[in-house]
Formats: sequence, structure tokens, C-alpha cells
Amino acid sequence: MNPPILPPSGQDRHAKGLEGVIALNSSICYIDGRKGTLVYRGYAIEDLAQNSTFEDVACLLWHGQLPDETRRSTLSRQLSRLRPVPEAVLRALVQLPTDFDAMAALRTGISLLSHYDPEANDGSKEANYRKSLRLTAQIPVLIAALARHREGKSPIPPREAGNIAANFLYMLSGEEPGDRAVEALDAALVLHAEHGLNASTFAARVIGATLSDIYSAVTGAVAALKGALHGGANTRVMMMLLELQESGEDPAEFVRRKLAAKERIMGFGHRVYKTLDPRASVLRQMLEELGRERGQMAWVDLCSTLTRVMEEEKGINANVDFYSGLVYHLLGIAPDFYTTLFVMGRITGWSAHLMEQWDDNRLIRPRAAYTGPVGLTIDSAAAKDSHT
Amino acid sequence: MNPPILPPSGQDRHAKGLEGVIALNSSICYIDGRKGTLVYRGYAIEDLAQNSTFEDVACLLWHGQLPDETRRSTLSRQLSRLRPVPEAVLRALVQLPTDFDAMAALRTGISLLSHYDPEANDGSKEANYRKSLRLTAQIPVLIAALARHREGKSPIPPREAGNIAANFLYMLSGEEPGDRAVEALDAALVLHAEHGLNASTFAARVIGATLSDIYSAVTGAVAALKGALHGGANTRVMMMLLELQESGEDPAEFVRRKLAAKERIMGFGHRVYKTLDPRASVLRQMLEELGRERGQMAWVDLCSTLTRVMEEEKGINANVDFYSGLVYHLLGIAPDFYTTLFVMGRITGWSAHLMEQWDDNRLIRPRAAYTGPVGLTIDSAAAKDSHT
Repeated sequence: MNPPILPPSGQDRHAKGLEGVIALNSSICYIDGRKGTLVYRGYAIEDLAQNSTFEDVACLLWHGQLPDETRRSTLSRQLSRLRPVPEAVLRALVQLPTDFDAMAALRTGISLLSHYDPEANDGSKEANYRKSLRLTAQIPVLIAALARHREGKSPIPPREAGNIAANFLYMLSGEEPGDRAVEALDAALVLHAEHGLNASTFAARVIGATLSDIYSAVTGAVAALKGALHGGANTRVMMMLLELQESGEDPAEFVRRKLAAKERIMGFGHRVYKTLDPRASVLRQMLEELGRERGQMAWVDLCSTLTRVMEEEKGINANVDFYSGLVYHLLGIAPDFYTTLFVMGRITGWSAHLMEQWDDNRLIRPRAAYTGPVGLTIDSAAAKDSHT
Repeated sequence: MNPPILPPSGQDRHAKGLEGVIALNSSICYIDGRKGTLVYRGYAIEDLAQNSTFEDVACLLWHGQLPDETRRSTLSRQLSRLRPVPEAVLRALVQLPTDFDAMAALRTGISLLSHYDPEANDGSKEANYRKSLRLTAQIPVLIAALARHREGKSPIPPREAGNIAANFLYMLSGEEPGDRAVEALDAALVLHAEHGLNASTFAARVIGATLSDIYSAVTGAVAALKGALHGGANTRVMMMLLELQESGEDPAEFVRRKLAAKERIMGFGHRVYKTLDPRASVLRQMLEELGRERGQMAWVDLCSTLTRVMEEEKGINANVDFYSGLVYHLLGIAPDFYTTLFVMGRITGWSAHLMEQWDDNRLIRPRAAYTGPVGLTIDSAAAKDSHT
């Protein structure tokens, strides 16, 4: 490798992976991993998960304020009515081979939606807000249709009744979901709605900053979230738990054996949160109530054992992915769809970030230091004219 | 706005839009705008455009070396054989409403391709190279099919014969293209193959860095290139030229009138290149030869007048977008498809950047400074329990 050649500029600063670089100002989310703090627009995540709905949080992320009664009912009505997805999009999705990758299919589905939205290329603030509503309302319909297509079943159309969580669970099975199930999914959506400038949100803002449209930016965000280093952790948790259950091994033994072999146990610790992941404790409570409603306390007990032994042996806490994996499993969702549920919540954060980006837009374009060769020339004798 | 709260870290550096920040090392491309230099892997762009083909440049970008005779014929055979696109993808694209946005449709088409590639989620170096070949071979087929669908015509299947440029022109019309036409398109592909860490390439690397797959990263790159601040400049050039031709106004008068009114004339000057855009002079020559072959010298003359007057009045040179717009017009391509031609070339640069990223991967994740409120709580009286 040649010594790097910096592009000509007086202010070049090397920052591999952009670690520690502040790319922009944002008033949407504040995270302090050392204190275990996650705040949306000034409100602690625990407060929001316990005292507001996903629709309230969407309003908070988009407008900076929790809704009053009037705004709540307006937003709820809008989101309900926008649920139906163009027939052509569903038709294209159910033509996919049934072994599709769920995130790739959702990426395709969101890209397809744009072709049927007459406002797709309208970059006005008002149109972008309406498109944020449509995406938030329609993404759950795409996911439910794909989940059923995986099982060879045709889609169940959305109803106007019920919030996003209730309607999604209904579209999955065609059955009325229990109250604890709706509450647990609603809380999971709140907890996944936003998490600062992570890779998918950053990808959305990089794409949006070219003044591309919201469908493009969200398609790119889904593409980023699909990566193993980003989404997918709760899928890996559940695969591990299902294997453990299958094997019949004692859970405490399982943990000690893994730790002795220096193998990683999925769903513990967090890159950002050095103490407790504030989202984990909310979901643990939801999991217990849901286990009781569904009569599946065995999973709750398994979970208690694993977290107790990990705490004793390593002093590490379970993270949000550990609990969300179990919650989704009890809700009857297949593990490879868990990351699509992440999208169902995060669409609100992505769209809030895009609207913030467009309010004060600037192309996001760092530079590369060149480490390749210089001064090469093509030998004219070997040039194309002698070959064509 | 509250004063920004920086995330806790000792090394925070503010850099709005990441300007002047070096995000990574790369041995693919070197640009010196002040000198008017553009280099792929050590070779000047003028040298490559005159003395090598687009397939040679693809090999250079992917492998760091121009091909010898054996590698050239192997690569050419591989790219030819990989052209056929899965029937299901074409079927889905020709079901789109014919007023589709060309870049949105290409984004959808690339996302769809992944569902039919058994290696879509294989992240090995070998599989990623094979997928780069497939994307480079199949993207022109998607574009030609879409261009014909726009006119209500069914796709013309690719042939094995001819290079990418020749086969693409054949698929557009079903007719044998002229030699100058193939040469001009081939040169345009070479000139657009790579341009450092621009917004679309950066988007591809941000997505790829999560260990998402190449289809996801390229879908996101197309999504970014779709933005008005990135791709699309040559479309705007041609729209301006077509309007000028339509109006019958004297071209010199047109320039002077626009300048007097302080209106922008599309296709002149460049954000990066402060002297001559090195890609422009190559295309100007191609344009003249193509105009002669097609018997359309009027466009060449118009172009000469505009550039001469702009040079006299403002001392500003025409850029690559000015000439590529005219070249594509003479090749019979509709203006709103020009950015898809950009993708046809740039897929080689994007895939080279992705393979480089994965050779030494690291998540790309800058931070945001928080400027929102702090310490808010939901009034329990207004909490959700009283509303649900």
C-alpha cells in the first residue's frame, strides 16, 4: 500500500468509520450509554413505553410534541385510513419465491410502493409528512402479507379498527389479538422507534441529503438495517433459545458451558449501553404479562434463569434484543421476520430524521485518502484499438 | 434551539456534512479538482477513455489491474453470459405504470434481482465478485427493458455478442448500432465508472459496512444517485437544450440573455473541478464523431456556440454532464433515463468500493449533537391509560 494521499484541503481529519465525528445537529434523540439513558425529544424511553402509545410517539418524533386529544384522534384516523396498500404491490410481493429473505422483500416492497404514490417525487414538507404517514401505516401491511406468503397463505386486508399493533397482529392470523399481546407489541414499537444516528438512520440521511425522495431513503435504510452488524440480533437470540429448548439442556448449564468455551451468548451486553439497556426492563415486564396471557410461562422461566446466571457469572445484563426476541416469539412471529418488526417501529424515527435533514439540508459527503498507485499509463501497443 | 449536547466522548469533532473529514482509505480513485485530474487505480481518465474499453475499466476497478488478453476474453465471456435477467423480474417491471420514475424503477428492479440470486446473502469474497459481474451484466438489461416499457414496447432479450455498450444499444431499438455510437457510449461508461467517495458511493459503503448484501448496498446507491443534488444534471442540460431548440432563439443570444438575468446555464462549471473537467474533452470529441455518423451536426454546432460564448463571457468550461446529455440524446435515449446510464457505468465503481470496504470492514457511524429539550415527563393524568 502506498502512503495515503489526502485530497487537497487544509482541514482534513482522519476518522475511520467516522467514530467520534459529529456529522450533524439533531433534536430527535439523546443517548447516554454510560448512564443508560435513551430520550426521544426530551422524554425518557421508560416514561414513553409505559405512558404513551406508538402512535403518540410517532407524533412526538415528527412534531416534537406529544399529541393532545384532538391531534391524537386525527392522527389515529389518518393512519387507519392509509393502511390499504396498492393491489399491484401486494401482487408483486406474493409472486416472490416463498424462500425470500424477509428484509430484502420488505426493501423491494417499499421501493414498489413509490410507483403508486402520486406524491412520490413531491419534496415539499407537507408531502413528505403525508408520505411518512403512509409509510408508517402501510409497512405493517407489507410485513403481514409477507409473513403469510412465507406460509403459502394469502394476505389478510387491514381493518380500520385498532391501533397499528392490534391491526398488525390481526393481519398476521386473522384472529383478534389479546390485550397483553397488543400492549407488548405496542411497547416494542415504541422502544424501537428511534435510536439516534445509527447506520440505517445515517444511510437514510445520506440518501435524503442528495434531495432524493423519502421512499428512496427508507429503502436504503432498510437495506442498511438488513446487515448482520445492525439489525438481526434478536433473531440470533431466538435461534439460540430455540436450539437450547430443542436440546433439552439445563439452561444454567448451557450458560456456564458456553462461557467456559468462551462462546458468545446472544442478547447480553450492548455496544452503547454500558449499564442497563433502558429498553430491556420495560420489555421484561411485558414478556411476563404476555407469557401469562398466552399460558407460555416456560419461556419466561427460561429467560429468568439465563439472565440470573449471566448476572452472577459475568455481571452482564440482557439487552433489548434478548427480550424482544422472546416477545415476538410469543406473538407467533417467525424469527427471520424480527428485523422487519424493527422497521415497523423505526420508520417513524427515520422519517423524523429525514424531515429534520430536509429542513436544513446539506449534502453529506466525507472524503477518502487515496492509497493506490499513481502515474500509470496504458502501453499504447496494448491499447484497445489493437483488440477491437 | 437548545445549546447542542455532545454525546459523551473525548474526541468529538464537529463537521457538518462531513466536509473535509477523511472517512476511509481507498486505492480506487484519486481526484484533484484544482488540477483537473481524475485517476482510476493510477491511470488518468483521458488515457482510459481513449485506450481501453468499459470492460477493461471494470477489471481495473475490481482487480487493480488492466486485463491481459486471457483475462479480457474470460471477463468478456462471463459478462456476456450473465446478461439474461430472471423472467419474473422483467415481468414485475413491465407491470409498473408506464409513467414510472426511471431511477425509482431501476431501484426496484435491482432490489428484485436479489430474490432470484441464490448467492444473494453469501458474503464471501468470491460470491461478491460474481454478484458484481451479474449486476454489471444485468443492469443494462433492466434499463433497456424499462426504456422500452415507457414506450409501451416489450423488452428485447440481450444477445451474447458485442460489448455492454453495443448490446445495450441493440436492446433499446433492436437494430445494429453504428460503430461511433458504440464507441461514444463505451467512453461515457468509462467516464462515469467511478468518482471517489461521492454521496451514492458513500451510501453504498455505509450500507455495506453493516454487512448487508451487495444488492442492498447498490439499491441504496441508486436511491442516493436519484437525488437532484447528485445525478440528473445531464437530464437538466438536455431539457434546457431541447427548450432552446424548440424556441428557435439564437444560441448566443440565449446565453447572453440568461447571463444578464443571472439565470443558471446548466452543464457549465463543476463543484470539484475548478479548471477543465477532464471527462468533458473526451466526450466532446465523441460527440462530434457521433454527430457526423448520425448526420445530426446541428446539435454539435449548437454545442460549439454555447461553449464558445460561455468561455468568452464567463470563462467557464462545459462539464461532463453537458456533453453526456448531448451524446445520450444522439443515441436516442430519453432525457429522464440519463441517470440510469450513470448507474450502468457506476455499478463497477460501487462494487469495487464495496469489495474494498468488506476487505477491511468497519461500521460507518458518526454521531449527532443533540439540540432538543431535556428532562420532560408525561403528565400521568394525560397518560395513555386514561385514553385507551
